[in-house]
Amino acid sequence: MDSVIAFIDANRGRFVEELTAWVRVPSISSDAAHAVDVRRSAEHLAVELRALSAGRVEIWPTAGHPAVFAEWMQAPGKPTLLVYGHHDVQPVDPLPEWITPPFEPAVREGRLWGRGVVDDKGQVHIHAKAIESFVRTVGRVPVNIKLIVEGEEEIGSVNLETLLREHAADLAADFVCVSDTAMFGRGIPSLCVGLRGLAYVEVFVDGPSTDLHSGSFGGGLMNPVNALAKMIASLHDEAGHITVPGFYDAVLPLRDDERRQIASLPFHEDEWLRSTGAPAAWGEAGYSTLERIWARPTLDCCGIQGGFQGEGAKTILPARASAKVSCRLVPDQEPEDIARKLGDHLQRIAPPGVRVRVETLHGGRPYLAPTDHPVYDVAKRAFSKAFGRETVFMREGGSIPFVRTIADATGKPCLLMGFGQPDENAHAPNEWLDLENYHLGIKSAAYLYDELARLPPEGR
Amino acid sequence: MDSVIAFIDANRGRFVEELTAWVRVPSISSDAAHAVDVRRSAEHLAVELRALSAGRVEIWPTAGHPAVFAEWMQAPGKPTLLVYGHHDVQPVDPLPEWITPPFEPAVREGRLWGRGVVDDKGQVHIHAKAIESFVRTVGRVPVNIKLIVEGEEEIGSVNLETLLREHAADLAADFVCVSDTAMFGRGIPSLCVGLRGLAYVEVFVDGPSTDLHSGSFGGGLMNPVNALAKMIASLHDEAGHITVPGFYDAVLPLRDDERRQIASLPFHEDEWLRSTGAPAAWGEAGYSTLERIWARPTLDCCGIQGGFQGEGAKTILPARASAKVSCRLVPDQEPEDIARKLGDHLQRIAPPGVRVRVETLHGGRPYLAPTDHPVYDVAKRAFSKAFGRETVFMREGGSIPFVRTIADATGKPCLLMGFGQPDENAHAPNEWLDLENYHLGIKSAAYLYDELARLPPEGR
Repeated sequence: MDSVIAFIDANRGRFVEELTAWVRVPSISSDAAHAVDVRRSAEHLAVELRALSAGRVEIWPTAGHPAVFAEWMQAPGKPTLLVYGHHDVQPVDPLPEWITPPFEPAVREGRLWGRGVVDDKGQVHIHAKAIESFVRTVGRVPVNIKLIVEGEEEIGSVNLETLLREHAADLAADFVCVSDTAMFGRGIPSLCVGLRGLAYVEVFVDGPSTDLHSGSFGGGLMNPVNALAKMIASLHDEAGHITVPGFYDAVLPLRDDERRQIASLPFHEDEWLRSTGAPAAWGEAGYSTLERIWARPTLDCCGIQGGFQGEGAKTILPARASAKVSCRLVPDQEPEDIARKLGDHLQRIAPPGVRVRVETLHGGRPYLAPTDHPVYDVAKRAFSKAFGRETVFMREGGSIPFVRTIADATGKPCLLMGFGQPDENAHAPNEWLDLENYHLGIKSAAYLYDELARLPPEGR
Repeated sequence: MDSVIAFIDANRGRFVEELTAWVRVPSISSDAAHAVDVRRSAEHLAVELRALSAGRVEIWPTAGHPAVFAEWMQAPGKPTLLVYGHHDVQPVDPLPEWITPPFEPAVREGRLWGRGVVDDKGQVHIHAKAIESFVRTVGRVPVNIKLIVEGEEEIGSVNLETLLREHAADLAADFVCVSDTAMFGRGIPSLCVGLRGLAYVEVFVDGPSTDLHSGSFGGGLMNPVNALAKMIASLHDEAGHITVPGFYDAVLPLRDDERRQIASLPFHEDEWLRSTGAPAAWGEAGYSTLERIWARPTLDCCGIQGGFQGEGAKTILPARASAKVSCRLVPDQEPEDIARKLGDHLQRIAPPGVRVRVETLHGGRPYLAPTDHPVYDVAKRAFSKAFGRETVFMREGGSIPFVRTIADATGKPCLLMGFGQPDENAHAPNEWLDLENYHLGIKSAAYLYDELARLPPEGR
């Protein structure tokens, strides 16, 4: 490994230049005008990978934007790692807020600034450069690697499931590595081992057929806004638990070791709270803030509306009101089950004098990594070697549906080894990549391949 | 009275023609472009009244639109009645919905159609024609009458209080009669003896400084929409009582005789409910629908908003939410007192993790007529003579601020003797006046003057 690490150190500047060239391609997948750029981005990556004299390097068309596939299968008897990433990027609005243009990457303060530098081109490039560092020094990668880089992650990975199914044999592997997340904090190597799911419904409450005069009718009819408020209020008890019957049935309780591990993280609640602007933290009794946002389900109104919303006073008894209600789910809750339970419950608690209708808008399943599998120790060790610091397990409160898609399609342990930072502006103006993280990321990937190669067959 | 009543019958058609001429003047007070028409409307009425050879007929300028004042003081020793009305009208939008143009009055189905026919030119005209019927037959009106017809009722009677103060001596009277309301139902002579007041506040709930990702933060912070829902829900108990401390302190309980009287009215709850489109009636336990909307205070959300309101799903934890909350008040609740109690209570029940701010938007005092005063029996009798049916007491759930303004300024009993119908489209397209009501209204006014003249001095 010494020659590989030395190569990574020696080529640090060139690697950044090559990443910069790729970031210049404005591969915005949500904008039809940029479809040709998404294709150019795939071709740019394919050209770079072909230079590494691997086996197959292919551009896989989809019904939408193309993916890139490459493999290095020169380690017979060794495990196969499937690395997932994406080469499409978010839109850039609002453009005036960018300090330097999104597709003219610039280095400032030890960071590379530009759209896609961290989400996700930089993180894909980390693997490409780790592979190159083996190829150009010892001649081959010590494990078998398959790389799948899709072009539609920012538009919901709409064709990923099809791609995984059609290329199931091409993509067969022992382990999956996804590099598209952030580290717990600056300089803290982190493996993300849990993601929450989502069940999102909209509830409509209808009373009178039109807005009525609040004087002539007020007091004689149930007001749909008051009714909706009453229904929503009843969905939590005083301790912040959710009252929907059966809501917690499938929730895996936090184990003591998980709680200890979460409690050991350098989480500064004061700083976190200050960053939100809220006057106080609040949540389910009996859990810490990190437990609440990572490992406990929630029920939040994302929006509510009803009646008069203009300036000043209008005296009406509104005809209707509605709210968008989102539940974040944890393993093993299922979105369809929770949406049904919530919908049934909302119907049941509807007060007299209104009609209630519930629509399911959106769902996603939660993910929990099988951290008792030995590959997680391997990844921790590799990550720690590069960063010189112990690797922590963390979770994300948000939902990343494609992780569950890949995990379910492959049935293999999934390593969420991310090199971003929590404040990296991934979907905002002035996205940046910490160049030290990028450099240590390449070393992390190299150590991961090396460690995996030494994993005994019974550890797969 | 026989000759007076005969005159009213004989001139039925001419009276309608004269009203029609006045309705042609488009005296829309809210539209600056019609200011000259409001003035023309005042002059039109003054000309008609001067023809009745009364004493003073004057146009009183205000800071806005002019009022008309006239008096017939030819009954020494007899009571003086102050009649209030207004000659300005509502706007006419949406114009295409009018079957015949709003300022080209037309007769169809025994009704006169046009803007202002019932609100309030027709009702003012009823008094003018009753006065004329005395003048042209017996030579003089049997009581002393003062008529004040303002030009700004539809824009909130903005200068009425000033007018009443500046002309306090001119307007001194024993009783006040306001003809600007509707009857309980078709053919049912009705005196309105109660109006509700209003306290209208807006409550703002602030959490994080911007909308946050509902995955990354959901569960760790109080959600302002959920918090607002909880606060609003808690403002009613299960029986529909309002839980704001001190809210009912000043509420006059319904007396048994009032409840009996309300229960005796021909109210068809099925029809009423069908007209609203709501699936069921609902309200404070222990009260009937009419009691709830006439004589009990309410707390209704007129509007609520917060978070994402577009199509589909957006996964945010909203930064803020707000609601417009209107309380209808009953005697002797005071708007300032209720707004303060509600605001203080909302602050007190704010859950942790949000900041709450309350603004008072609007207020109005309730009115309850002193129905034990003998003048109410006089009015009932007069009204019944004209309509051939017993006069009922009713209330209005809405608020008519100028009634309380006049009642407070004069300190005299106020007779709300209206000739409209509940479905007369007063503020909508196709406003209409029942011509039978108009005709019997003139007789009612004539009988009222006659009865009042016979009221013994101790009855004033």
